[in-house]
Amino acid sequence: MWRYLLLSMFLFVNVNTHYLYQTKWFEVPLDHFGLGRKETFKIKYLENEDYWNKNEYGPIFFYTGNEGQIEAFANYTGFMWEIAAEYQAKIVFAEHRYYGESKPFGNKSLEKEYIGYLTSAQALADYADLINYLQKDEIKPRYPVIAFGGSYGGMLAAYIRIKYPHLVAGAIAASAPIHMFPGMTKCDLFNRIVTASFKRNFYCSENIQKSWHLIRSYSSSVNGSEYINSLIEYLESAYVTLAMVNYPFASSFLTPLPAQPVAVVCQYLNQNLANESLLEGIAKAIDVYANYGKKTKQCVDYKEGDNYQNLDAGGWDFQACTEMVMPVCSTGQNDMFEASPWNFTKYSEDCYKKYNVYPRENMARLEYGGDLLQAASNIVFSYGLLDPWTAGGFISSVSDSVDVILIADAAHHLDLMPSSPDDQSPVKDAREKHKQHISKWIDSFRARNKHVVTYL
Amino acid sequence: MWRYLLLSMFLFVNVNTHYLYQTKWFEVPLDHFGLGRKETFKIKYLENEDYWNKNEYGPIFFYTGNEGQIEAFANYTGFMWEIAAEYQAKIVFAEHRYYGESKPFGNKSLEKEYIGYLTSAQALADYADLINYLQKDEIKPRYPVIAFGGSYGGMLAAYIRIKYPHLVAGAIAASAPIHMFPGMTKCDLFNRIVTASFKRNFYCSENIQKSWHLIRSYSSSVNGSEYINSLIEYLESAYVTLAMVNYPFASSFLTPLPAQPVAVVCQYLNQNLANESLLEGIAKAIDVYANYGKKTKQCVDYKEGDNYQNLDAGGWDFQACTEMVMPVCSTGQNDMFEASPWNFTKYSEDCYKKYNVYPRENMARLEYGGDLLQAASNIVFSYGLLDPWTAGGFISSVSDSVDVILIADAAHHLDLMPSSPDDQSPVKDAREKHKQHISKWIDSFRARNKHVVTYL
Repeated sequence: MWRYLLLSMFLFVNVNTHYLYQTKWFEVPLDHFGLGRKETFKIKYLENEDYWNKNEYGPIFFYTGNEGQIEAFANYTGFMWEIAAEYQAKIVFAEHRYYGESKPFGNKSLEKEYIGYLTSAQALADYADLINYLQKDEIKPRYPVIAFGGSYGGMLAAYIRIKYPHLVAGAIAASAPIHMFPGMTKCDLFNRIVTASFKRNFYCSENIQKSWHLIRSYSSSVNGSEYINSLIEYLESAYVTLAMVNYPFASSFLTPLPAQPVAVVCQYLNQNLANESLLEGIAKAIDVYANYGKKTKQCVDYKEGDNYQNLDAGGWDFQACTEMVMPVCSTGQNDMFEASPWNFTKYSEDCYKKYNVYPRENMARLEYGGDLLQAASNIVFSYGLLDPWTAGGFISSVSDSVDVILIADAAHHLDLMPSSPDDQSPVKDAREKHKQHISKWIDSFRARNKHVVTYL
Repeated sequence: MWRYLLLSMFLFVNVNTHYLYQTKWFEVPLDHFGLGRKETFKIKYLENEDYWNKNEYGPIFFYTGNEGQIEAFANYTGFMWEIAAEYQAKIVFAEHRYYGESKPFGNKSLEKEYIGYLTSAQALADYADLINYLQKDEIKPRYPVIAFGGSYGGMLAAYIRIKYPHLVAGAIAASAPIHMFPGMTKCDLFNRIVTASFKRNFYCSENIQKSWHLIRSYSSSVNGSEYINSLIEYLESAYVTLAMVNYPFASSFLTPLPAQPVAVVCQYLNQNLANESLLEGIAKAIDVYANYGKKTKQCVDYKEGDNYQNLDAGGWDFQACTEMVMPVCSTGQNDMFEASPWNFTKYSEDCYKKYNVYPRENMARLEYGGDLLQAASNIVFSYGLLDPWTAGGFISSVSDSVDVILIADAAHHLDLMPSSPDDQSPVKDAREKHKQHISKWIDSFRARNKHVVTYL
């Protein structure tokens, strides 16, 4: 069941417009790596030049969009906006193909016969094309480009530096699970990290752990077992989301939630509960998750699946079924969930039923190398120690110029979020380090471009 | 007209079997970067394990096949065979998709509707897959892999290190014109280098330069102008080939030729000739080119085009029409040819007529970066100073670990050819340097793999 998790890496309700940008469109080929298909289509990008010192070749801050409409990333990646003035940078947020309005075949794009060109390699090639266009098609690019991204977007930021270092001077890759493909990390690590956040609150993880059996027996006696698995999945997904967005401030990033949402939810589970009082505690906890900030409380319709599911991110399920295979499991021992082993055979068959493709489980490893990054340079990987996706990170710096920053008390790419008075020193320090790296990358790009290169 | 040049980068007559290998097959997806097409097919590779110290993780020497049947590259890349014992290396030569017997759609592969998956990116991904298979699908590869290639194969050797550094420890890229895409180098440089080889011989280039007008006027009075352009193209192509394979030993590499073929040809053109004596000199020169080593001399059928054209390399014309656009022109002033400007519009239209595609003239630059190699590592680019393809090289080393070796008195990737008693010190020195680099890359791969890496 844990496959559905992947869908929730990045989905949005309530996009608030904090920042100003122009919406633009850029034409790309459907297939960058073959000539058989001749179609082109347009991807969306958001642009702001208010801070840009164009005449003196100010940098371009380029967000490598991930699985969702790009406006959401623009509005929640406050870090880029907040440092743009200091760097006199142009800001660009590029939308990932097949998401938002960047659909090659319109509303039919996610159908079996049209979805095949939704891959990370094609998306990276879109961004490479767009960056070249922003550089005015110059053989020797003039503006230092810094890539930014969080989560799958962080993977893309790292990957574009790895694959296109001639186009990108450096990359800030936040909460990027680049080491989570089959065979890399233990599949239960993700849920152990989720559990750790709940364990910080007395009895909370214990109560949740006990609740599964209770819910199953209660449900089967009351409603029959028809929807019980959906309910269990809904609850699991809720706890994972709470751990991911366990920010020190209220946010609508994935779904509207209060500051420190795990602690808020756990206040209803902070005693040793059993039977109906345990069910009641779980219900109150979920009520926070489902109804926070709503004027009138609504009954939770868990049968709908992820409550923040929207059409625009539907493509992720296909990506998870093809190249983005990231095994997740639970043991019921080291985590607070029911035991659920990673079953690749079933996973594959489910994918085949839905999309008529089997996963290429080695595709991302072969293409990007996992953590074999000895040849890479100018990348910062940042991971929040509260963030379950840190399961796909790695703990020590690879080389002088591939740095790993671990951020205590930080959930999913907190370092990219808008700053808040509630931010503690770990995330503030991380942002300072990011800036030091960015400055260094820009300086070395500029030093290099001063040289006059002589050709034969 | 210079477009046809590209076809002659690498074509073969007379494949002699000097070396022993097993012929094997490896299954690859038709499309590595999309899921729309589900076909797979097999590429051929040649393997020799006679020298391999498998138990102690001896290296794998991997030739990234270029536009032709792989046996030819195996037989002429003597350098790999000659150093294999010293390195206790396994030898692999991989055939490029759409060439030789590695055709995804059999005999129909080069037809318009099937040829679209013939791109360098797909070929590199084939090789990445194959290397992973040779590493037994291990997440942490155990055998250091060194890529080798000459000409377009040299580009691929460099590119596989650039794009897949987690799979390839280093690359020897011989005579690789990686800096020859539109906007990079001057289009007349290629033919100036051709001319320089003929200039070394008294009157030779001057006589050739004078011959064009004479041939045109003679032909129009005798035969009419019907085939005159074919004849001119044939002669131009012959001179280019002679310059490319101007080796110190007799070779059948492109076509059977004596040692120092430019000097041999020029012996008929080493006086100031005019009129019929000039035509006679040209005829004798071409007779060497066309009939060397043949038991009975044959009349040259220039209407056939390149005399060493064969079916197996037919794909190169498509590659030149899509991503491998390398502008070549002649001025008639700084070179010994008729003036022929680079006309991209005409080039594009010709391509469209043939393949129903327009060139993507920026594709290779965006994908591989031209000479913007500051982030690359562990690559040696070697260029022979007699080789016209050095026009697409660059003269100074990029960084500590991207080295450029210029080889005096050397034609097209002489350093990869089997050694010969006629070899002079420049090419011997180059081979020594290659070995130093290879040793260094292997050592650092091994040092790295001793570390125990701890994951979260």
